[in-house]
Amino acid sequence: MKTLLYEQIVADIQAQVASRSLRPGDKLPSLRTICERYNVSQTTALQAYYHLEAKGLIESRPRSGYFASEWTDKRFPIPCVSAPSGAGAASVNEVITRVYGDMGRSGAVPFSMGMPALELLPVAKLNKGLVRATRSLPGSGLEYEQVQGNGNLRNQIARFYGRAGQGMTGEDLVISNGCMEALSLSLMAVTQRGGTIAVESPVYFGILQLAQSLGLKVIELPTHAQTGVEIDALKKVVSSQKIDACLLVSNFNNPLGSCMPDAHKQEAVRLIQLYGVPLIEDDIYGEVYFGADRPRSCHSFDDSGLVLWCSSVSKTLAPGYRVGWVTPGKFKKQVINLKLYHTITGATITQEVIAGFLETGRYAHHLRKLRQTLHANSLRYAGAIAEYFPEGTRVSRPEGGFILWVELNQRIDTVALYDRAIRQNISIAPGNMFSLQDQYRNCIRLSYGMPWDKNIEMALKKLGQLIAAG
Amino acid sequence: MKTLLYEQIVADIQAQVASRSLRPGDKLPSLRTICERYNVSQTTALQAYYHLEAKGLIESRPRSGYFASEWTDKRFPIPCVSAPSGAGAASVNEVITRVYGDMGRSGAVPFSMGMPALELLPVAKLNKGLVRATRSLPGSGLEYEQVQGNGNLRNQIARFYGRAGQGMTGEDLVISNGCMEALSLSLMAVTQRGGTIAVESPVYFGILQLAQSLGLKVIELPTHAQTGVEIDALKKVVSSQKIDACLLVSNFNNPLGSCMPDAHKQEAVRLIQLYGVPLIEDDIYGEVYFGADRPRSCHSFDDSGLVLWCSSVSKTLAPGYRVGWVTPGKFKKQVINLKLYHTITGATITQEVIAGFLETGRYAHHLRKLRQTLHANSLRYAGAIAEYFPEGTRVSRPEGGFILWVELNQRIDTVALYDRAIRQNISIAPGNMFSLQDQYRNCIRLSYGMPWDKNIEMALKKLGQLIAAG
Repeated sequence: MKTLLYEQIVADIQAQVASRSLRPGDKLPSLRTICERYNVSQTTALQAYYHLEAKGLIESRPRSGYFASEWTDKRFPIPCVSAPSGAGAASVNEVITRVYGDMGRSGAVPFSMGMPALELLPVAKLNKGLVRATRSLPGSGLEYEQVQGNGNLRNQIARFYGRAGQGMTGEDLVISNGCMEALSLSLMAVTQRGGTIAVESPVYFGILQLAQSLGLKVIELPTHAQTGVEIDALKKVVSSQKIDACLLVSNFNNPLGSCMPDAHKQEAVRLIQLYGVPLIEDDIYGEVYFGADRPRSCHSFDDSGLVLWCSSVSKTLAPGYRVGWVTPGKFKKQVINLKLYHTITGATITQEVIAGFLETGRYAHHLRKLRQTLHANSLRYAGAIAEYFPEGTRVSRPEGGFILWVELNQRIDTVALYDRAIRQNISIAPGNMFSLQDQYRNCIRLSYGMPWDKNIEMALKKLGQLIAAG
Repeated sequence: MKTLLYEQIVADIQAQVASRSLRPGDKLPSLRTICERYNVSQTTALQAYYHLEAKGLIESRPRSGYFASEWTDKRFPIPCVSAPSGAGAASVNEVITRVYGDMGRSGAVPFSMGMPALELLPVAKLNKGLVRATRSLPGSGLEYEQVQGNGNLRNQIARFYGRAGQGMTGEDLVISNGCMEALSLSLMAVTQRGGTIAVESPVYFGILQLAQSLGLKVIELPTHAQTGVEIDALKKVVSSQKIDACLLVSNFNNPLGSCMPDAHKQEAVRLIQLYGVPLIEDDIYGEVYFGADRPRSCHSFDDSGLVLWCSSVSKTLAPGYRVGWVTPGKFKKQVINLKLYHTITGATITQEVIAGFLETGRYAHHLRKLRQTLHANSLRYAGAIAEYFPEGTRVSRPEGGFILWVELNQRIDTVALYDRAIRQNISIAPGNMFSLQDQYRNCIRLSYGMPWDKNIEMALKKLGQLIAAG
């Protein structure tokens, strides 16, 4: 899937907005200028401006042309680099159980949700795919799938990700029950009970719970809200102590939104190769990029088979289908055996539907729309937070994904804030869910995966008031 | 689901055949006699005889009435009680990989197969169920299901199994990715690496592989081909040493076909309660009974919450749907957490389809037909083995399931036999796959899950010749 002409124009103007070389209210180049500068047709130039307008980055004024939108102006600074204090063992389960238990019941505005809203997913097309799959599969999907997973699905994944520089074939992949099982199988393959892994901090709580359930110690590393794990810290930990695996969410990390630059990915891969430490890469958000190109994976820089690249369609297409995968590299035999022993294989039919969605280009088409919507959301949500939250707030500025990390005044306890917010029918994820060190008590994770509307804006305003009343 | 009138008549006559009080060629009571004896209508009596005829147990002769069929006569004796030698650690993986690798490729007659043939499954009805599920589910099944599993599915399972004496509600169940994940979650919940579990011998190899992958030692117990695990042996092991869990396939055990009598189940439950040892009960074959009533589960005798009852629809309805379940009893919280940490939840849509299949009575209807076919198959396959295999062979006589355990002359090595058979396009499961003690080398497991036809008969004849040439 190569970058289309209009996408390059969109990406360039986005970059100017991000760098502030294009300020709110500034006039944009005329369509004619764009045509000349990029050597494109008027139609292509218009398509680019339509996209930018749909994202809310620019607006057209009758008889005056296009202008950078006003509302993107005010922004809070991004959070500082995290400073985890070492290995911790606080239990995060209680608050997690509360947040997700409440969410199921309450009908609250689900800022704590870990997936994009259903309205953003291609429900009807997937349903058609299901019917097609009952016809294309021998036995309509009643038979056991191969342990390694649907062959066509594996080939389609290999082809799809080939464009982002990841050379692989279907044979290099193992299909899993979502990305979580990919992480579970990978950890079981490369670690032993009592071992130690290194992760970003803050980090998705599911990773902490999984590690604890496997009897692993977790070292949390300082992490930058834009560039991800601090490479010096990573180097120090892999070179100075016995680490059984690193587990990094390389692109649009949950909850920080950070994306490791290529140079960091390359260096991380060099380090883990040098010290022979497997790197489990969780790349579940990589497809939701707002720039021109998909960010590369650490896996694309690896030639040693030590990077176990894990992903799924759960955050972009069909959470309930439970289709994920891993490239187990050197650990292929162990991972396939573990899959067989613990669950035999995944559901047959949902794998076939996803294979078809990839093969026909429907996934690529859907992702273009999803990215546009989520990018616009990210700016609108961040704009509203800048407007309604108290001064001193810091907000991440993710270039992909659907999650904001919000750092509030140090004296705010977001577990208490959670209780006040849920009474107002607003569900947030308190920051201390994302560490075993009882840190980030003044932070919250906010999803911008719900379509922007007045309700969302009012909920953010109310949340800002609750914080201010703090 | 109560026993219908005709089913009682069928069961009584089956029992007479089994006990040899009705011998091949014997004339059966006239329909009029049946009507009087059971106080039923002529239609019901006819229905019973039709069923017995469909099973191949009786045949009608024009103007003479009904007679017990000839071909059920010759039968080999059942295998002796197994005598495992203690704890073993042989690797069973190599031969398993070979058998199932070959099966995928070869197109051989799959006597080694672990599921009934597709022809016996209600493919079209399940496909309709899928379309219905896309309509009944909010989000057409794209959203994450509850970690514990689809609420309606859990309620329907509770209702369905209530009839077999198992009092439970949907709240007592956790849905898993097939029965294998139910066993995996259960073992992870009640054991620690380095612990010990007690199982039947021979035992399904997947249980041995799972236990080894979790770092558990396995004690194999002597087991009777009709009555299952020897209760004295079970008592000795739970009373004299530290056992972390027992794992028993109580009904129509794979591969022996044994079914524990109620008194044994009751005693097993008393023992594990007395010594506080959790019992993981694999009851995946219990629905495929050939008698009048479903055999009870150990779980139905338990009031302590120590019996984790595991089952699925993989052996009766839809292997590729990956829908299984467990009643985790005392360990509910741990099992739900483990499910969440390792795979979050199962596929949403296949759970909804199975819920609908149970709710509408389609599952009960399908099972009636499946049982009839498999019962007839069991007699036909066993008859052919008696005809074509050498004297000295012993064959299990299962009262349910779809698997025969065949004990050959001691000097036959069935791994070598496997190689000769696969060259003739016949796939068998060598006996030593079912123990960690390199035992049962003179045994094979044969599935009778394929519809009986001339090809199957010829394959059994050829197999008999290969054994005789041994």
